[in-house]
Formats: sequence, structure tokens, C-alpha cells
Amino acid sequence: VTSTTPLREDDVVAAIRTIVERPGSSKVLLGIGDDAAVWQPSRSHRSVVTTDMLVEDVHFSRATMPVRAIGWRAMAANCSDVAAMGARGVLATIALGLPPAWTVDETEELYRGLAACADASRVIIAGGDLSRGPVLTISITVVGEVRPSNLKLRSGGRRGDIVAVTGALGASRAGLDIMNARATIDDALRNEALAAHRTPVPRVREGGWLGASRNVHAMMDCSDGLSTDLARLCAASGCGAIVEAVPVAASARAVAEQLGEEPQQYALAGGEDFELLVAVAPRAYEHVALRFHASFKRLLQRVGVLQADESLVVRKEAGLEPLARSGWDHFA
Amino acid sequence: VTSTTPLREDDVVAAIRTIVERPGSSKVLLGIGDDAAVWQPSRSHRSVVTTDMLVEDVHFSRATMPVRAIGWRAMAANCSDVAAMGARGVLATIALGLPPAWTVDETEELYRGLAACADASRVIIAGGDLSRGPVLTISITVVGEVRPSNLKLRSGGRRGDIVAVTGALGASRAGLDIMNARATIDDALRNEALAAHRTPVPRVREGGWLGASRNVHAMMDCSDGLSTDLARLCAASGCGAIVEAVPVAASARAVAEQLGEEPQQYALAGGEDFELLVAVAPRAYEHVALRFHASFKRLLQRVGVLQADESLVVRKEAGLEPLARSGWDHFA
Repeated sequence: VTSTTPLREDDVVAAIRTIVERPGSSKVLLGIGDDAAVWQPSRSHRSVVTTDMLVEDVHFSRATMPVRAIGWRAMAANCSDVAAMGARGVLATIALGLPPAWTVDETEELYRGLAACADASRVIIAGGDLSRGPVLTISITVVGEVRPSNLKLRSGGRRGDIVAVTGALGASRAGLDIMNARATIDDALRNEALAAHRTPVPRVREGGWLGASRNVHAMMDCSDGLSTDLARLCAASGCGAIVEAVPVAASARAVAEQLGEEPQQYALAGGEDFELLVAVAPRAYEHVALRFHASFKRLLQRVGVLQADESLVVRKEAGLEPLARSGWDHFA
Repeated sequence: VTSTTPLREDDVVAAIRTIVERPGSSKVLLGIGDDAAVWQPSRSHRSVVTTDMLVEDVHFSRATMPVRAIGWRAMAANCSDVAAMGARGVLATIALGLPPAWTVDETEELYRGLAACADASRVIIAGGDLSRGPVLTISITVVGEVRPSNLKLRSGGRRGDIVAVTGALGASRAGLDIMNARATIDDALRNEALAAHRTPVPRVREGGWLGASRNVHAMMDCSDGLSTDLARLCAASGCGAIVEAVPVAASARAVAEQLGEEPQQYALAGGEDFELLVAVAPRAYEHVALRFHASFKRLLQRVGVLQADESLVVRKEAGLEPLARSGWDHFA
């Protein structure tokens, strides 16, 4: 990688990792690479910390997104990362860059969205920083806690594990198409898609529940699209996967069909869905799925199976096809 | 405050506080208002967390500041906030907004500065987030730990306490004037000022030491200028102060004299100095100052005394004068 190469996220992360890695830092157990970093405040406790930056006109547009929804989504992304480790959130800090002509009213509206999602995720907003900036920039850090035995990483998947998600995917991307006036669908589906895009619900209780199950070997959230995130889980776990079914949200299917696009692509590449992606011991899968449904009145939806071969493939009528990694690259 | 009022930092913070405050959040002990938030991972432990956002052309200019120094300063500000609570830093997360045409080499250089200051502060860089953005934006969160008895707040000052700082002030502002070619002074002072501006050293060991002293009643860092920060300590402690001496760095004095400005203003309003400001029990002050000097080969410099009357005044030859709050307002 030279200075003239365009930035690719994975290259940059690799370069950073080389610079910041320090051997033998006993209190910090897990650093760059998972949804959150992990450290050990005492022998019997683990804390996790995750951080996320959202930049106007990169991650959202004030022209189409209400200010309160901008706040909600920013908080949701971080609470989802904490839930994806099996942890419960404790507190959040928020650093804001506020653009010229930004008002106190708009700041309050943004904070109402941040606080509403924090309340829904049982997280206290405990501090922050305010700054001027050329565009609205929101950087959030959420700290959580987890019993050592409940901590779930991306790297715990084993061949034969069943891969599943906590809900159908693609609705957030469908909501974006609707907001951008690319598609019009019936009201109920429209509302599903807009809510998924504007006020996505991080799977906080589900994450704690799945974290407490010994049969859940690996977990992460699906925020960059199933194809990208499954590839990351597989890479961390040293295996591949066969995708047998891609659960597509009804609103995503409707929008895709109207636009003449492939519905599965909304789930594979859409991103921002915040469902949890898990790898579950195959013999326990049916039992886990039943108990999950009983607890949350939601289906744990089977996506496929981890395999020893490190390739990612999709089972189609004509046979196995490679799975293209079509999700979100933050520099693409 | 209405939507047409220009933003003032204290107004915005007050508005935010109303929205985010939640009564009875037992794990979160201290939120918005101090240098860092505090929570309780277990009965015998306290953790602190602080966050900070630096925005290009608001807080620094790439035209005059080397990329590595931008990284160092960003990390220093957060490590200083943690030290100001009496805590030791554990880990940092870093969210970056990277401007167009930004290279992998520049990212590495930025991270070398971040990592060098983190190493000097014994903090592990454990995670982060990368994003595109219109200008370079750096948001850092540092988590630290402190024994409950060593935690120091802004609010602990008592009337009669001696106010002191861990070093002379104003050198960072003098360095900015030199970088902007407003002043030229002799090499030794020039180097002092440039180092203070580019690679300021957070008082990490000093903060831990002062935190462990029962005679230190209140502590914060001096990052927004002595006049602003002393006013904040007094407001939190419900008292006022008489300033008797303002310790001005030699380089600040030289630059001020060359520019025909008041040297004290460099210390009172300059900011970014990262010395610690403490309120010390009067009967113990001499003993604390002697032991401090023995430990760190630095002088604890006496600034004045806290008084019951809530005004802030400076003792001058002609008598007491009001102390203008001339430091940094992030929206001024």
C-alpha cells in the first residue's frame, strides 16, 4: 500500500493495527477488529467499549432525515455493537461537530433522538463534547458490561454451526429508497421500511439472551450487509459458509420488485439493519430457535451453515455459486 | 434561549442536560459537567470515561501542524481529562473522519502521533471507526480506572483552599503565535513553545499522585485557559477565588512582550496547556508542594485561594480587580 493507493478500509485497518498493537497489555483483552473492545476492570468483570462516527452527507442527509431520527440511528449503531458482544450497555458519551447556523432547538431535537434510543437500550448518556464543524458530525462511544462467560466474539464460529439472523434484512435500504422517492409501496410496508431506516431497534435484549447461551459460538451485528458481515465472521472464525436462505424483509421485497432489482441484494448488501448474526451449535439449533421465539415473539431465521472450506457460497437451484462481498465499505 | 440565539456552549450544555438526565441511575455516578463521566463496574471499582472531538480548521490547521502532532495533541487532551480525575488511563478508542485525497501514509503518520502519546500515557488504543468526511475529524474516547477514594472532582473545593497549578501556563498559545509567524523568539524558548503546542505532555503521573492525596480537594485540567477553568472549578465548588499570582511560561512572556500584549493573558486565556489545577487544604499545602517537587522535579505553583464570596478577583497593586473570563468558548 503506497500513498497513491485509494483508501480501502481493510488496508487502513491493517496499517493501523501494526502501529497500535502492544503485546502483553493484560487489562485490554481484545482490541481492534471486533464490534467492541474488551477489557477487564477486575477479575470477575468484563467491560466492552465501542465507538462510531456519523458524518453528514456521508452517512445521512439532513435533506431527507429528520434530526431526531439522525440522533436515534447514531445511538442505535453503538448499542447494537454492544449487544452483539452479548453485553448490556451502561453509558454513552457523545461528541458533536455542529455546522454553521445550527441552533439550540436543533441540538435539543438531536438529543431527543439520542436519548430516546438510549432509553430504549437502557443506556445513560453521561458526557460528551461540543465543537463547531463544517457538517453535522456525531461520534458516540458506548460502554457496556458482560459476564466473562457471556462474551461473544466474531471468532467463535466452528464448522457445522448453523448461521442465523434475528430478523429479516433489507428494510433499512428499502426505507432509504422510499425517502429518496425512488419507490412507492403500500402504507404498511412503507411504514415498516421508513421505521427500519429512521428508528432501527438495536437487538439489545436479544443480544443479552444469545450471549447467555453456551450454544451460541459467535455473534456480531449485520450493520454492513449480510454478505460483508458473514465474510467477516467467517474470516475471524477461520472458516467459510454455505448460504441456503436469505431472509428478505417484505418491504425490501416490494421495493426491489418495483425497481426491477434482485430482492436478495437488499439483504446481502443493504446494511444498517442491526439484526444480530449468530453461529449456533447444530445439535442445539432447534432448541435455541424455539426458546428465542418464545422469549421475543420473533423468529431466529436460519441463513446457512459454516464449513471448513474458507469459501463463501450460495446454494441456488443450479448449484453452489460464490457469494460476492457486496456490502458497505466505508471508503467505497 | 430560542432558535435564533447564537449558540453559547454553556446554554447548549444546559439544554442537553435537561434532556439526558435520568434520576436513579445507580451505576452511573457522575455525568455531564466534569472532565469525565464516572461509573461503577463493581462495588470496589470506579471507571471514568472522557471524549473529545477535534475538527480541522476549528481546532487545528493542517497547514501549520504536522500530522503526527495533530494525533499527539488529540490523544493528550483525553489523557489529561482522565488524569484530572485522579484516574489512570486504560484504553482509547478513536473515530476518524478522513478528508478527500487523504492517504494511507497520512493515516499511519496520524496514528504514530496518537500511539506515541498513548504510550507516554500508558493507554492502549483498542478500537475505533473510520469514515469519510469533508475535513479531518478526530474523536477520541479514553477510559480509565480509579480507586473510589482517589477520585477527584471539580466540585470538591472549599473556601480557604490554596489553588495551584502543576506548571507555568501560556506556552501552547505562544507556540501557536510562532507557528503562525506572528512572533520570533530565541531558539530555546521557541522550542519550549512549539513543543508545548505540538506535543503537550498530559500530567498523567502527577494526576495519579494528586488524586491519591486526601489534601487535594478538587482537580481539573487547565485546557481552556486559567480564567475559564478556575471559574468552572469555583462554580462547581460553590465558591469564588482570589488570584494572587499567574504563573506565565517564559516563552509566553517573550512572545507577549514582542507583540506588545499582556503576558498574563497568555496564561489566563491561552488554553491547551494541560497543566492540572488543584484546590489543596491550606494547612497541608506546603507539605504537598514539597513532596510534589521531590517526586516530579517540578514546582506546584500557587495561584491563589478559594473564598466564600462567589466572585473571581485578581490581586493587583491597586487592589482587587474582577477576573474576566477570557478563555476558550468552543462556539465563540
